[in-house]
Amino acid sequence: MKLNKNANTHILIVGLGLLGGSYALALKKKGYHVEAITRRQSTIDYALEHGMIDAGAAVVDPAMVARAELIVFALYPHVFLDWIREYQNLFTPGTILTDVTGVKGSVVYEIQDMLREDVEFIAAHPMAGKEVYGIENSDDRIFQNANYIVVPTEKNTEDAIALCEELGHELGFRSISRLSPEMHDEMIAYLSQLTHCIAVSLMCCHDNEHLVEYTGDSFRDLTRIAKINDAMWSELFFMNKKELLAQMDLFMNKFRELRDSLEQGRAEDMRAMMRLSTERRKLFDK
Amino acid sequence: MKLNKNANTHILIVGLGLLGGSYALALKKKGYHVEAITRRQSTIDYALEHGMIDAGAAVVDPAMVARAELIVFALYPHVFLDWIREYQNLFTPGTILTDVTGVKGSVVYEIQDMLREDVEFIAAHPMAGKEVYGIENSDDRIFQNANYIVVPTEKNTEDAIALCEELGHELGFRSISRLSPEMHDEMIAYLSQLTHCIAVSLMCCHDNEHLVEYTGDSFRDLTRIAKINDAMWSELFFMNKKELLAQMDLFMNKFRELRDSLEQGRAEDMRAMMRLSTERRKLFDK
Repeated sequence: MKLNKNANTHILIVGLGLLGGSYALALKKKGYHVEAITRRQSTIDYALEHGMIDAGAAVVDPAMVARAELIVFALYPHVFLDWIREYQNLFTPGTILTDVTGVKGSVVYEIQDMLREDVEFIAAHPMAGKEVYGIENSDDRIFQNANYIVVPTEKNTEDAIALCEELGHELGFRSISRLSPEMHDEMIAYLSQLTHCIAVSLMCCHDNEHLVEYTGDSFRDLTRIAKINDAMWSELFFMNKKELLAQMDLFMNKFRELRDSLEQGRAEDMRAMMRLSTERRKLFDK
Repeated sequence: MKLNKNANTHILIVGLGLLGGSYALALKKKGYHVEAITRRQSTIDYALEHGMIDAGAAVVDPAMVARAELIVFALYPHVFLDWIREYQNLFTPGTILTDVTGVKGSVVYEIQDMLREDVEFIAAHPMAGKEVYGIENSDDRIFQNANYIVVPTEKNTEDAIALCEELGHELGFRSISRLSPEMHDEMIAYLSQLTHCIAVSLMCCHDNEHLVEYTGDSFRDLTRIAKINDAMWSELFFMNKKELLAQMDLFMNKFRELRDSLEQGRAEDMRAMMRLSTERRKLFDK
């Protein structure tokens, strides 16, 4: 299949949180027919009132699932696995499934292994979000300037991979790339999970309420993501435990290197690390 | 003395880098008479061409120093100390000196101890900056929404403290507070120096150029300040070594706590840290 707004491709979003809602916003604007299934009726009502979806249900509506050509799962990892287990009988043959899950190794293979042969799951990770959640905070502008990673395995067809990349384009992502589940999880452990661990730890160091009177932007920047959904992120951390531990240890070693150069008065070693970080960071300017 | 734009208070800025230049911009706009001494003639030329100062010199001009009522030192700490040692004979009695230095304990007492009795040094730390430097990057908007810390000692008069606070107001700072040199250095070790150590260490972990294709905003935010002036920051770190080491160790312990809760599968401990960091971070939203 191909995405086709003129032929009114039916896209179903399962889970209307911040990301699911932002997908709905972006895809509706592009002219697709968007439906949604989520737990609360109030979320469906909100999405309908705000023109984010064409139809929605707070229960798993078999007809809605059956008429979807592309289904995006925007659920917590364990809920996603349970959902597939319970409802995959409802898919129409040929349906393409994708997701937004933040870890891949422990999800993709399990889904693909249990999945019916006549549908295909192609994993993706939109590297976009906010430190708030819920459909009310949906915002399709978070995809601009952001990265979208498609995570195929040997089981995926080139057609489904291309469709998934097209979805990334339609959502408005700036850069779309492919990674294996293993490479994805290593990257994400470093770029996303480790940064959240750092922010949380940093914020937990002191309980002085007056700190805010003395702080500069650097502390604000480093702790923005210390506002964190503890249920979701702890689940993601444990699902990527081995990689995250490896990255945390790597960071601790570098941090200790800097600390020891301070303690031992090795200014040149310290400055060499600073010059290296300055050089490397330049690549990341938007 | 009091700041008085109508009476044309003469303010001298020594050191026209990013901060000195931004002070000049802000104070000229407010109507003060602003002069500057800095090392390079090209910097003086730039400042004159851009209307940032009324007069300037690339050497220490005795007449310029003598006619200044308020002098702001925006120099590297060791240069600041040397300058006072060499040129303090040029001050007119009653001159008020202030600074922008990022550490206080190892600077303020030494300056005050060597200083002539008929002038007064009141220390201040504008918590504003950029990850770039030089007069070309001057920008007085960096003071908006930023904090300004006045750092008096027992040697300071209430008049000079009030003048210094007024300077903070005139520069446009949102919040102005007072801290002792010791409290200042502890705060700064945590809020500013530690965050820079984290950013540098994080950026040094990997040298994969492709990372930029996969990253989200969290990594960008945490490493913005990894672009760092290694000469200035290493000097500041060593001048605040004891406090910075204490804060680095405190952070490492918290980080290890989170790491161990991951390794040992203690989800509730991990989530408790996340909820604490979420709660605390709310205070820092601008």
